[in-house]
Amino acid sequence: MMTERIPARTIEARVEGVYWAPRGTFVSEPLDALKLTYEGIPGDRHSGLYRESGPREPWYPRGTPMRNERQLSVLSAEENAEVATAMGIPELKPEWIGGNLLLSGVPELSALPPRTLLWFPSGAAVRIDGDNGPCKKSGASIASNIPGRPDLELGFVQAAKYKRGLLGWVEREGEVRAGDIVKIRIWSQVLYTA
Amino acid sequence: MMTERIPARTIEARVEGVYWAPRGTFVSEPLDALKLTYEGIPGDRHSGLYRESGPREPWYPRGTPMRNERQLSVLSAEENAEVATAMGIPELKPEWIGGNLLLSGVPELSALPPRTLLWFPSGAAVRIDGDNGPCKKSGASIASNIPGRPDLELGFVQAAKYKRGLLGWVEREGEVRAGDIVKIRIWSQVLYTA
Repeated sequence: MMTERIPARTIEARVEGVYWAPRGTFVSEPLDALKLTYEGIPGDRHSGLYRESGPREPWYPRGTPMRNERQLSVLSAEENAEVATAMGIPELKPEWIGGNLLLSGVPELSALPPRTLLWFPSGAAVRIDGDNGPCKKSGASIASNIPGRPDLELGFVQAAKYKRGLLGWVEREGEVRAGDIVKIRIWSQVLYTA
Repeated sequence: MMTERIPARTIEARVEGVYWAPRGTFVSEPLDALKLTYEGIPGDRHSGLYRESGPREPWYPRGTPMRNERQLSVLSAEENAEVATAMGIPELKPEWIGGNLLLSGVPELSALPPRTLLWFPSGAAVRIDGDNGPCKKSGASIASNIPGRPDLELGFVQAAKYKRGLLGWVEREGEVRAGDIVKIRIWSQVLYTA
C-alpha cells in the first residue's frame, strides 16, 4: 500500500556562496564561480566520474571502484545556522565542513528527495543523490576552529543529523556563480511501504 | 513539516530474465547474462556515460548533452501481468517494451524510491534513478505484436502509469544472470512537504 502521491513542483533558492576544496585539503575555499564538468569540480577533492568506496559503503570491500555520486556537497544557510545554535557556537562556516554550494531560501533542504534537480542560470544542472550524513571528520574540522570546544567533534554528528545538506552529481556542465537563483525541481513523491 | 521517517530496509527479488537491445533496435532480446560496465550494457541502445536530452527532458533544448541516468530498464513480472490484464491481453513481454532486467517478488516495484540500490551476487550494483513513464513508442511495439489491437498504443500509456518499472545506472561493474537473487536496499524515506 502506498501513501498518497504528492505532485511535482519547482521552487527557487539563492546561491549564497560557492566553494571548492583542492585535492589534499578538507576545508573548502570560497570562489566567485565554480566550473562544473561531468567529473564535478575539476581539481576538487571529490571530483571524478568514479571513486573508491569508503566507510560510508560498508557493503563493499573498502577501496572498491564505484561510480561517484558524491561530487558536490550542497548546504543550507538556514540549517547551518540551526546546527550552530544547537552546538552553541556563533556560526558554522560552510568551508569548515567542506561545502561546495551554500543555498538559502529552502526550508529543510536536507529533506529534499533523491532525484531532485538543481537548474542554474548558466544551464548547469546537478542531480541530487540524497542527504549527507554528518561525520566526525567534519566535527573535528569545526572543533579546530573553535578553541576550547573539543566536544564539537562528536557534537556536530548529533546536531547535524538530517541537517547536513545534500550530495549530488553533475548532470549538465556549466558554471555556478554566487548570487545565482537556482530552480529546484522536486519530482512527484510517494512513500514505499509495500 | 515532514512526515514521519520510515527506516531503511533490505528486501530480495529474483532476476527472472535479462535482455538487451542492440543499437538500432527497440525490442530487446533475452540473454543468459548481462555484462554491466559504467556505460551500462555495452552495445545496448541505452548504453553510455552521457546521452542527448529528448522529449522526456523538455526543460533542456532537444539534443543537449547530459549524464545518462537511464542506462537500464528494470521491470516487474507482477506489474507487467497487471498491465496485461488491464489491457486485455494474455501477456506483456518485457522485450516488447525494451526491458533489461525482469524482477519478481517485489510488490509495487515501480514505487521503489530514487537512490535505491540493487546488489547482485557478482558484485555488480545498480543505483535507481526513479520510475519510468510509459510512452506511445512502447505501446506501438506492443500493438505490433497483438493483431487487431491498435488501441494498445495509447492503452499502454494509461494502463502502465506508475507500473512501468524503474530506470537506473551502473554503480559497480559486474555481471547479472537470469536466476540471480538480487538484494534491494531501500534507504530511509521521508516525504518533503515543507
